[in-house]
Amino acid sequence: MADKEFKARVTVTLKNGVLDPQGKAIEGALASLNFGGVSSVRQGKVFDVNLSASSKKAAEDTLGDMCEKLLANTVIEDYAVEIVG
Amino acid sequence: MADKEFKARVTVTLKNGVLDPQGKAIEGALASLNFGGVSSVRQGKVFDVNLSASSKKAAEDTLGDMCEKLLANTVIEDYAVEIVG
Repeated sequence: MADKEFKARVTVTLKNGVLDPQGKAIEGALASLNFGGVSSVRQGKVFDVNLSASSKKAAEDTLGDMCEKLLANTVIEDYAVEIVG
Repeated sequence: MADKEFKARVTVTLKNGVLDPQGKAIEGALASLNFGGVSSVRQGKVFDVNLSASSKKAAEDTLGDMCEKLLANTVIEDYAVEIVG
């Protein structure tokens, strides 16, 4: 079976309870720019990956593996994989 | 009118054509981990923002302003705002 091309978006975010100093800094910067009403900012990472795989399921599995091994630190981060095209 | 709490996700990605050395490095690292079939990796940022606003529209407008002024460098980056809750 010929492989197909998939576009995927992988989102890596800090788990709840993990301190996010960068998010806090952005919160402070927004306040000093007079954006009121912001109660929380947390920063994460996004990876747009184009890959070829035999099926959507296979692509998702491969991306999950990539997250476990490289893209996310699963001790402190959660990840979500989404095939977008 | 009392303000409501909104949860938003802001995604900031490099515009097409802007070099992404970090993405290239990840591509190389994935190849050396024997993940074949990856044709492209681009890295971006995601911000999970909780804010209060009078309406969903008002929240989206405020978040757009935040992107223009702080969260994104609109010369080289695109942003997308999504209200998730």
